[in-house]
Amino acid sequence: MTDFPKTERNKLKRVPKRGHYDKATIYPIIDEALICHVGLVNEQGQPFVIPTIHARDGDSIILHGAVASRLLKHAATGAPLCITITHLDGLVMARSVFHHSMNYRSAVIFGRGYLIKDEAEKFEAMRILTDQIMLGRWDDARQPTPKELNATSMVRVEIEEATAKIRTGPPGDDDEDYDLPIWAGVIPMQTSFLPAETDPSMRMDLPVPDYMQGYDRGETK
Amino acid sequence: MTDFPKTERNKLKRVPKRGHYDKATIYPIIDEALICHVGLVNEQGQPFVIPTIHARDGDSIILHGAVASRLLKHAATGAPLCITITHLDGLVMARSVFHHSMNYRSAVIFGRGYLIKDEAEKFEAMRILTDQIMLGRWDDARQPTPKELNATSMVRVEIEEATAKIRTGPPGDDDEDYDLPIWAGVIPMQTSFLPAETDPSMRMDLPVPDYMQGYDRGETK
Repeated sequence: MTDFPKTERNKLKRVPKRGHYDKATIYPIIDEALICHVGLVNEQGQPFVIPTIHARDGDSIILHGAVASRLLKHAATGAPLCITITHLDGLVMARSVFHHSMNYRSAVIFGRGYLIKDEAEKFEAMRILTDQIMLGRWDDARQPTPKELNATSMVRVEIEEATAKIRTGPPGDDDEDYDLPIWAGVIPMQTSFLPAETDPSMRMDLPVPDYMQGYDRGETK
Repeated sequence: MTDFPKTERNKLKRVPKRGHYDKATIYPIIDEALICHVGLVNEQGQPFVIPTIHARDGDSIILHGAVASRLLKHAATGAPLCITITHLDGLVMARSVFHHSMNYRSAVIFGRGYLIKDEAEKFEAMRILTDQIMLGRWDDARQPTPKELNATSMVRVEIEEATAKIRTGPPGDDDEDYDLPIWAGVIPMQTSFLPAETDPSMRMDLPVPDYMQGYDRGETK
């Protein structure tokens, strides 16, 4: 896979060694995430940051929402967007307060969106979005009706530029601080999925589907 | 605690019953989070969404970073910001693809920042930020030197308006879909902290501090 260009917009200035511009590094960060934070600007120059689900489809990001959604209406105009995804992997406890940090993997994506109008493409985008969250669910659940399709906007954001920023490993302190009697290390973090809770309104006794058992974003990708 | 006003900027238009405007609901969402996503707009009208740590101090949000950081430089200008925090609590599996959702608690905060110049206030802001992540760490770690203080910008963002959006509970399907033989329910999610990993570069044998044992954001707040 190719690299994104480094531009004034996406080039990391702070701690540049943590920056990555290749799709092979950036795309798994996007794909593992359940949500992203979309940044947009209104006519008054006010930024908004809206959390929403997403799916990557090749070199684009699919967003969806109600036809009346401000986020989707704005995203469909082709205005510049910034889509950011962050995974926290650990708290980094250094000897000095100054060198405390976090282990993380983030992706910052720049692009512009347009409304998916073709009905077949829209239906397929919904499938991609559904299976991105829970592979197998699309085939099992009741699929969208034409009415539901009409009530939903699907926007495709072509990725123009993107950057990943990654920190891993133990803390890095100033040389002289290693002699201080202060514990240092990392508290690793992960997202855990608990056993599925059946809807109390179920009218029949059905088992939790196999594709949901032991759900884990790390394993399913 | 009081409510924030509902304005054109912060009023929820989609699914308004999920919206909350009171500090008693919004502030715990901010305090539980380890990071936020800050939205800003550059001179060309390009939005940027940057993940960073934060701490709430009364009715303001403290951000920090290197003096050279673009985020901090921009935040210090008093330009409009949007700070968003999202906790995912579960995947909501409905019978219909259309009614799939997530359980979540999000806070969207609007405000403007300024640089904290007073040295004592800056030092105290660093303590608040450190203890927000790990209560007890500030007193244990080597505290910032004047040189480190000078290399760090601390920005206070006064909260002008904020909104929380919350979804809880099982899926809600269309009446006729409850007769379909499709399992429905929720897969609960949580952030887990694993046992602390001691820095391999430790020059002495020290135990993991008591205040880090069994670390849990839900319990510490």
